[in-house]
Amino acid sequence: MKRTLKELAEYVEARLAGDDSVEITGLASIRSASSGDLVFVSDEKNLESALRSGAAAVIAGEFATSTASKPLLIAKHPRLAFARAGRFLAPPHRYNPGIHASAVVHPSAKLADGVAVEAHVVIKEDVVVGARTRIGAGSCLEAKVLIGEDCNLGANVAVYLGTTLGNRVIVHAGVVLGSDGFGYVCDPATGRYEKFPQIGTLQIEDDVEIGANSTIDRGALDATRIGRGTKIDNLVHIGHNCDIGEDVVIAAQTGLSGSVTVANGVIMGGQVGIGDHARIESGAILGGQGGVPSNKIIRGKGIVFWGTPARPIRQYLKELAVLAQLGKKGNH
Amino acid sequence: MKRTLKELAEYVEARLAGDDSVEITGLASIRSASSGDLVFVSDEKNLESALRSGAAAVIAGEFATSTASKPLLIAKHPRLAFARAGRFLAPPHRYNPGIHASAVVHPSAKLADGVAVEAHVVIKEDVVVGARTRIGAGSCLEAKVLIGEDCNLGANVAVYLGTTLGNRVIVHAGVVLGSDGFGYVCDPATGRYEKFPQIGTLQIEDDVEIGANSTIDRGALDATRIGRGTKIDNLVHIGHNCDIGEDVVIAAQTGLSGSVTVANGVIMGGQVGIGDHARIESGAILGGQGGVPSNKIIRGKGIVFWGTPARPIRQYLKELAVLAQLGKKGNH
Amino acid sequence: MKRTLKELAEYVEARLAGDDSVEITGLASIRSASSGDLVFVSDEKNLESALRSGAAAVIAGEFATSTASKPLLIAKHPRLAFARAGRFLAPPHRYNPGIHASAVVHPSAKLADGVAVEAHVVIKEDVVVGARTRIGAGSCLEAKVLIGEDCNLGANVAVYLGTTLGNRVIVHAGVVLGSDGFGYVCDPATGRYEKFPQIGTLQIEDDVEIGANSTIDRGALDATRIGRGTKIDNLVHIGHNCDIGEDVVIAAQTGLSGSVTVANGVIMGGQVGIGDHARIESGAILGGQGGVPSNKIIRGKGIVFWGTPARPIRQYLKELAVLAQLGKKGNH
Repeated sequence: MKRTLKELAEYVEARLAGDDSVEITGLASIRSASSGDLVFVSDEKNLESALRSGAAAVIAGEFATSTASKPLLIAKHPRLAFARAGRFLAPPHRYNPGIHASAVVHPSAKLADGVAVEAHVVIKEDVVVGARTRIGAGSCLEAKVLIGEDCNLGANVAVYLGTTLGNRVIVHAGVVLGSDGFGYVCDPATGRYEKFPQIGTLQIEDDVEIGANSTIDRGALDATRIGRGTKIDNLVHIGHNCDIGEDVVIAAQTGLSGSVTVANGVIMGGQVGIGDHARIESGAILGGQGGVPSNKIIRGKGIVFWGTPARPIRQYLKELAVLAQLGKKGNH
Repeated sequence: MKRTLKELAEYVEARLAGDDSVEITGLASIRSASSGDLVFVSDEKNLESALRSGAAAVIAGEFATSTASKPLLIAKHPRLAFARAGRFLAPPHRYNPGIHASAVVHPSAKLADGVAVEAHVVIKEDVVVGARTRIGAGSCLEAKVLIGEDCNLGANVAVYLGTTLGNRVIVHAGVVLGSDGFGYVCDPATGRYEKFPQIGTLQIEDDVEIGANSTIDRGALDATRIGRGTKIDNLVHIGHNCDIGEDVVIAAQTGLSGSVTVANGVIMGGQVGIGDHARIESGAILGGQGGVPSNKIIRGKGIVFWGTPARPIRQYLKELAVLAQLGKKGNH
Repeated sequence: MKRTLKELAEYVEARLAGDDSVEITGLASIRSASSGDLVFVSDEKNLESALRSGAAAVIAGEFATSTASKPLLIAKHPRLAFARAGRFLAPPHRYNPGIHASAVVHPSAKLADGVAVEAHVVIKEDVVVGARTRIGAGSCLEAKVLIGEDCNLGANVAVYLGTTLGNRVIVHAGVVLGSDGFGYVCDPATGRYEKFPQIGTLQIEDDVEIGANSTIDRGALDATRIGRGTKIDNLVHIGHNCDIGEDVVIAAQTGLSGSVTVANGVIMGGQVGIGDHARIESGAILGGQGGVPSNKIIRGKGIVFWGTPARPIRQYLKELAVLAQLGKKGNH
């Protein structure tokens, strides 16, 4: 889509410096920008290269001045303005509504207006899908799954019995939602494991995004919950009974054991591991590969925790430094 | 299904205290129990809240007394009794037997009575599927796959050529079984890698359960084996030629490199990593994120190992304590 | 396929000692070899057991002598010769060319000669697939995907919009290629995350192999690249904008955050984690579970790095030794 800088400036609430009739057709990185492209810079030191790039205009922070060689959109948060400009220029892909002839949809399922059910999808009894939601090719919705409006499920997604998704949830290809939790009881007489009931549910709230091939288990007896706005990367595992708050960020390959509680606004790096019944309190940040033992509470708004067992990064770095020193002295 | 306490007491071999005609319709947690529900308590300190809950009856340990305000099922192992009560109240879902019209089944495949082949399944030459086994929607069984009786494969499972599964094996959605192992030979003349043959098999014994999106590779020349009763969580990787014993428990995101041997009854936490040709002996417990280097032997019944390289937890905790002390003194 | 030792010796460029008319029908391990099988030994200490095995002939290194009790193929690199013998005896499976009746292929897609499109595949607008490539059952190629010749995609693979694959690329079952990267901008006014544009591409070069259920994200604005000959194991995650060189080896469950650069010939063990914008220089080796912090540069041809943060293994082992000593002295 084509937009003038004037329209863009209004949409992203930026101050325009330069020719407001310039037409923008897309986004680009500074490195690869060409005519029609919009780029952005978050800090002053990259402004020069943005101005030298092939871009038609630049979104910059308040450090930029109106005398630049290209038109500028000056925004308080340039990266945010750039993201919004992107949505304005290219709204999310609209999938063709309709049910592909090869899809197998149970007659009891209720599909709202504008739903796109792609080829080879399977939708079982009593499923409900909200308006304009897309179910990607080869996905399977087991019985009683409820999905809200404007969701986008990629190809080959599997959703187990009774899982519920809110509105505007994005689920990437290969994700599994609502599978059985990992719960067994060992019979001491035989040493064999018997399955503990996994009959709870999985509830995913509005505006959640879930990365490719991630897995989220249903609760054992109650619900697993993923709070509004939480973003989950690829290959993440979330165990049964977890309660994940709102606006939580969980990077790739992180794993949460059963019954973990995560408060709003927590951030986790990649490959973090959290033991069962641990609690991560509001605003804590877990560095990549950090490990939280079972039943532990992690508390500290804005504090980064690192290592296994996870401890405040200041402490961890001190320990590493001491260790490095001792290692140098060591005589091995 | 509805059962009287009398019937339940007999089935789970518990001692009944109170009205044996009370009817139970389901299981619940103490928190959410309502009329008709059965709950359980493993230790005395939770008994009070169980008795105050909305449940119709309580499974408790031998610490409970017959004078309680609700009927009790007193069992030696309350959690085990609860799991069995669950099976009695709600036997595993029976899938509708039959082959869905959209499934593509090679004429040479042999499907026993009561097999449920769901929509969009693909079954290739010479596959054999045992009685009452369910093949979930969108799954693909490559040629010569052999699957036993009463198995349950979820949606979008992929099983490679010649893989064999025993009876009562549960495979969750998105699992890949029998894929090529990760084996290459570097040609020193070019620095390029050539594929080492991956022509072995994968044999999965009875009563194994495999979590969503896990992957198990076939052997290179011989077999990869998963022993009877072993339970594998989500997103686990098991490399080629591994030999996993019986009643092994492997939590989520754990990874075993090639040719690892795991004896019966080993327990692994989440995100454990084991190097190739390592051996984990009977009854050892690997704590979450622990790492076992290649060729290492881990030995010690009931001993917990932690850290990378994995060492007895007593030693590891001592080292952490010393390190924390030094870190405090450190002057950085 | 049946081959004489003479033919094999020529093909793998080995020196033949013994009866050149012996017929070989397959490969085996020493343990399970029977008549007609070829086995190999890389070092002298296993030669005896190879000669005592049921094999018809043995590939050995230059340590072997012509007076052995079985015919020998003496090669400079026995493992490499064995791998090549395997290809000679059993060329990669040829899938039946043709488009299965149940596949849904957009009329604008261009499929070259000899392409095998299996059951329940979905191929969308403007996809191009090169000669003799196989698309496994249940896979989905979104619009504008370009795939080269002689590729092999397993079952249930999902390839997002515009992803390109070179020739001879092997993609195992359940892999997701070209999914959105994990990029958001937090609106400080609301604390909510908005999606950063993920509109770049994913380019996979010739001779790459990707293990089951791995995920590789498209670039945010530019491309994610996987260089020629790189081998990726199961459940690996590669984030947006990564630039992976040629002949790189990445073992299972390793994860690369966004914008990581990996030079040619790097080797990574399993469960390695690399923070965003880190750079791994040519020939470095990252040991299993090693962690590279964001923006770090790892440099050192042939040097093994271990631990988190990753450091040269000599240093790491010294530190571990000192720590163990201190732990023993510690009084806890």
